[in-house]
Amino acid sequence: MPNRFGRLRPAPENFIDAELAQTITQHGLDGERRGFLRNSFAAAMAGIGGNALALDHSGAGADPAILNLPAHSRTLGLPVAQQPYGQPSRFESQLQRRESPGLTRVPQASVSFTPLQGLFGIITPSGLHFERHHQGWHEIDPAGHRLMIHGLVKQAKVYSMDDLMRLPSVSRMHFIECGANTATEWGNVAVPTVQYTHGMLSCCEFTGVPLSLLLGDCGLERKTARFILAEGADGSSMTRTIAIERALDDVLVAYGMNGEMLRPENGYPLRLVVPGVQGVSWVKWLRRIKVGDQAWNAKDETLHYIDLQPDGLHRQYTSIQECKSVITSPSGGQQLQGHGFYDINGLAWSGRGKIKRVDVSVDGGRNWRTARLDTPVLSKCLTRFHLDWVWHGEAALLQSRAIDETGYVQPKLSQLRQVRGTRSIYHNNAIQTWQVAANGEVSNVQID
Amino acid sequence: MPNRFGRLRPAPENFIDAELAQTITQHGLDGERRGFLRNSFAAAMAGIGGNALALDHSGAGADPAILNLPAHSRTLGLPVAQQPYGQPSRFESQLQRRESPGLTRVPQASVSFTPLQGLFGIITPSGLHFERHHQGWHEIDPAGHRLMIHGLVKQAKVYSMDDLMRLPSVSRMHFIECGANTATEWGNVAVPTVQYTHGMLSCCEFTGVPLSLLLGDCGLERKTARFILAEGADGSSMTRTIAIERALDDVLVAYGMNGEMLRPENGYPLRLVVPGVQGVSWVKWLRRIKVGDQAWNAKDETLHYIDLQPDGLHRQYTSIQECKSVITSPSGGQQLQGHGFYDINGLAWSGRGKIKRVDVSVDGGRNWRTARLDTPVLSKCLTRFHLDWVWHGEAALLQSRAIDETGYVQPKLSQLRQVRGTRSIYHNNAIQTWQVAANGEVSNVQID
Repeated sequence: MPNRFGRLRPAPENFIDAELAQTITQHGLDGERRGFLRNSFAAAMAGIGGNALALDHSGAGADPAILNLPAHSRTLGLPVAQQPYGQPSRFESQLQRRESPGLTRVPQASVSFTPLQGLFGIITPSGLHFERHHQGWHEIDPAGHRLMIHGLVKQAKVYSMDDLMRLPSVSRMHFIECGANTATEWGNVAVPTVQYTHGMLSCCEFTGVPLSLLLGDCGLERKTARFILAEGADGSSMTRTIAIERALDDVLVAYGMNGEMLRPENGYPLRLVVPGVQGVSWVKWLRRIKVGDQAWNAKDETLHYIDLQPDGLHRQYTSIQECKSVITSPSGGQQLQGHGFYDINGLAWSGRGKIKRVDVSVDGGRNWRTARLDTPVLSKCLTRFHLDWVWHGEAALLQSRAIDETGYVQPKLSQLRQVRGTRSIYHNNAIQTWQVAANGEVSNVQID
Repeated sequence: MPNRFGRLRPAPENFIDAELAQTITQHGLDGERRGFLRNSFAAAMAGIGGNALALDHSGAGADPAILNLPAHSRTLGLPVAQQPYGQPSRFESQLQRRESPGLTRVPQASVSFTPLQGLFGIITPSGLHFERHHQGWHEIDPAGHRLMIHGLVKQAKVYSMDDLMRLPSVSRMHFIECGANTATEWGNVAVPTVQYTHGMLSCCEFTGVPLSLLLGDCGLERKTARFILAEGADGSSMTRTIAIERALDDVLVAYGMNGEMLRPENGYPLRLVVPGVQGVSWVKWLRRIKVGDQAWNAKDETLHYIDLQPDGLHRQYTSIQECKSVITSPSGGQQLQGHGFYDINGLAWSGRGKIKRVDVSVDGGRNWRTARLDTPVLSKCLTRFHLDWVWHGEAALLQSRAIDETGYVQPKLSQLRQVRGTRSIYHNNAIQTWQVAANGEVSNVQID
């Protein structure tokens, strides 16, 4: 039974007694906040045989909360380093990345989505980072991995991992979003949850060597160099063109993610980090960078990751992920449990810099309130926003609208369609709507 | 065979050919940077049978780096969601938290240390967060978990996890350090690695409800309330006193860590986050908060976490972790592999705010250079520092010295001993020295 946060939890244990537990559950936090009377609490305790222990030196042993202790308060637990590499609680086992069955012909060329509905803050746990592979993933031995830089440089070079990890490194937090994230909404396919609408999105602390440093080390031919080509070591022939100005700006040749080495399915031991740009350019298992004087028009720049416009032409090399946001809680598939207070919250991001403001509407965009932002607000990074909301049981249409530091305002889907038609797959950054029904059910709707 | 980053890696695979691999290894990056000649590279390739593929449309197929492709570049890989919750590469399996055997009588009351020598940036992966338990850890069912707030409040209340997760939340990044971190150095016990000297240190993004909000919800008796007592739900009777001013400042009742729910061994489903304060006050499996008018002098405030001074008295309630830093690479137990460039880097933190500056010495404190800091520099959070260093084979003594925004300068061990004697266990924030021998071996020494 999924609760409103999209987690699966068993029915409540008998913590104090069944009647009391029910009282707590029924009262929840209503509009006036629950006042849980100490007297009635003490009364409920009176009938319970207790294993009362004097837990401190101040007479706190008389307090009702420490009567009838659960088993874990009365026993010796597990030792340290029981798990040399720790794992989530078994009560969280339903929070996992999931493939959308049938999305692609084979699961090696598919997507697994991050469960945004169950996450907090801005860091995506590495174990829940989304995946998008073109020919599956491999566990590459870093001892044998090499990066070659060649083309319009004075000196082509081959770097081992040990070479790279001796060089000056930088750590920065950035979001990564697949260019096809939220693709289903173009076609009015209201997939049920935010995991499937927006879950090709993650955010981590990445560590690596600035690409500008490596290009400098190889003696970049600055007068003729206009583009680089980045190539991955998997079997998909993944190659992406990046303008030299961007390559010399904030791009990293990264080996670290959230403090440790990249995970195999995210490019271990080496990937490109191209802040603000769609995920396909963050080439995984990076093995080669060539410097050239023109764009390569590689297959993933010609057949895929292009946007078919109403006039029959394609937009190409539209790599920057424009300003976007989505409410992750409450979101599609969740269930509000009773009237009262809710912390509406979600994520906002922009490939062009920092988020300036996020507005939230609970009535489908008629009225907007400014959300509170968690800090720090970082450039080309997720920002978590919050809005206090008291729900009285009315039907509601929840929306968020982000504005970035350039002044760009996240558009409505109708505004996007007006310019780009209905046949796009990629680069949908439209406002998302979640409908709350009178019974508390939350679902994905398009009202625009 | 541990390499200089403390990771265990097998011998290099035959990437291109054995002779070439050896050439790459031998040349490394020396003082003048390795110039890997394209001609000699092409010559080395000449004898190799290739599986050359034309990988793009620009003639790059002729480039030597894509000849003789490894198996993973020629085969279909693994599908997405092969691991619904992803794991580190098997090549990283030696990077784990480790107990120091014999440190305590039973492993349920022991420590496992974070492998700082192999981490990057500031985020500690949740699976490598250090552990310090007093009576072991439990996997608590969140459905049955409750938090009671009582004492000097107008209305005592009991909150379920669902109650708490509906309330306004905040996410912030903070370090957590055990008060006993670096304890062995007081007694001249030079444990070999930074994992054991400083590994009771982690840093995560925490998410929870501000304690001030909950105290307000219960109607704090502000005129009489001077302290809170926080109690955990394990069997250790862990109770800690916190001054009300701090409780109303930046303390969180937290359920989230690095984007997901806390790990069981770190307090799942609820722990206190007390920024800047030693870890013991970050009460795990938090079940009760009592508001009172005097400190409780609980056992872990009277028998433990106190500092025996030269005059025979104890320092008590010395909870703030003062400004401190340590070089994590190169560090004890690592091995420099050849002369040339190294990115000396490490961590700095202060329980009183932001890090202002970090100085690094390679000659045991005679000369200092200012390190580069990764951004953002956050309050009561780890900061990663870097210093470029070219090693010519000389013996070296590596030290770092942090200064926080209050102007406090991290002391030498002799300065600490002068004030606090030699019998302390807790609160050692002295400068750490790593010795680099002429053969590149790095070891823990006390030169002060």
